[in-house]
Amino acid sequence: MSYELYYWPTIQGRGEFVRLALEEAGSEYVDVAREERRGLGVPRLMRFLAGREGDELPFAPPFLKAGRRVIAQTANILLFLGDRHGLAPREDKGRLWTHQLQLTVADFVGEIHDTHHPIASGLYYEDQRPEARRRAKDFLDNRLPKYLGYFERVLERNSRGRGWLVGARLTYADLSVFQVLAGLDYAFPRTMQRVPSRYRRLKALRQAVAERPRIATYLESARRLPFNEEGIFRRYPELEAG
Amino acid sequence: MSYELYYWPTIQGRGEFVRLALEEAGSEYVDVAREERRGLGVPRLMRFLAGREGDELPFAPPFLKAGRRVIAQTANILLFLGDRHGLAPREDKGRLWTHQLQLTVADFVGEIHDTHHPIASGLYYEDQRPEARRRAKDFLDNRLPKYLGYFERVLERNSRGRGWLVGARLTYADLSVFQVLAGLDYAFPRTMQRVPSRYRRLKALRQAVAERPRIATYLESARRLPFNEEGIFRRYPELEAG
Repeated sequence: MSYELYYWPTIQGRGEFVRLALEEAGSEYVDVAREERRGLGVPRLMRFLAGREGDELPFAPPFLKAGRRVIAQTANILLFLGDRHGLAPREDKGRLWTHQLQLTVADFVGEIHDTHHPIASGLYYEDQRPEARRRAKDFLDNRLPKYLGYFERVLERNSRGRGWLVGARLTYADLSVFQVLAGLDYAFPRTMQRVPSRYRRLKALRQAVAERPRIATYLESARRLPFNEEGIFRRYPELEAG
Repeated sequence: MSYELYYWPTIQGRGEFVRLALEEAGSEYVDVAREERRGLGVPRLMRFLAGREGDELPFAPPFLKAGRRVIAQTANILLFLGDRHGLAPREDKGRLWTHQLQLTVADFVGEIHDTHHPIASGLYYEDQRPEARRRAKDFLDNRLPKYLGYFERVLERNSRGRGWLVGARLTYADLSVFQVLAGLDYAFPRTMQRVPSRYRRLKALRQAVAERPRIATYLESARRLPFNEEGIFRRYPELEAG
């Protein structure tokens, strides 16, 4: 089956978690808003959001069209793709545990976003800079180590080992943690350079994901958008200044 | 099966979404941190968080113990309970649509929380009051109508009608939207009084949930904690002042 992914065309954003899963699965997909062909592009995405198509109205991108189904919310899309493409365990316990980790990634991502947008997502960063400095300082001092420490411990406690978060095989949660680590390195390079040895399992996971043949090909391709200051992970050096 | 719910003992918070599902299902459960018996209470909750029990480490409360399984993340717990207790459709499409709505509720709840904690969840409200005023104003002006308008439209578009969000029967998403509406009335009474007619389907849903026999009994019981200024929905009149 070929999928249609609906997400903003110029950023990795939350859509990137879905792109990584589709790439690892080797699925065919159209990244709708990035297509310049007639009938595609951002206007098509907006038509969906306006509720003129599909049964189930999404609140916001990303959403995925699979045949006649439209599935929104990043973690929900991954739950769906995980089942279909072997990116999560089949049995209920491992399946929900993978999803639980993904929802914790979602919370982490929300907090990362709010370091540069603590007041309003509808305002520019420049309009909330003092608040962003305050929030970023708390994030880097308290929240970042808490989340990284959590995922490191999950890796440590996975008795089936092999470096993945769940059981003995890669899941979409590994892809998502890879993406967060890559984004944090982009946004907070000084902070991330200071903590390399403490999170050695996370570092190994990041490397292992980057070396998956399909992911490696994807990361080198034009399909992988660069990080930039419109996405979730933004490099504003003043937010690392403390 | 009897469940154990692990959540902070003095607030509704995110645990309340789980409590409502357990109550509607008529399930037996122990609200562990609220029990004063030896071996229970907050120390038991903290033992779990320290990772000394269970296979799957939760990042934060709430979490639910079901036999030997420990399930965390509110939406994930509801996915689990929805399957077990008929609080979501059985078929995959309706099941994921219900979950998608729940994840949108989770985003809504996160934004409501951040109206009083825009800088750091580890600081007191009093230490981030100017920022809270700014964030609350944006929330009330822009985000609140967007979320309420979305759920009202979902109700409107549900062709199987009967006033529920998904298909013809109540799901955990209805219970969660009820809880958010009750909380918003508590936190922002002036704002909520100004918008009664526009969201008539939401108002009817709230009433319909409150009249479910088990929910009505629960709401009158001592098990239902009152809203207060330690939870997600806090009444700080200055945040409504604009």
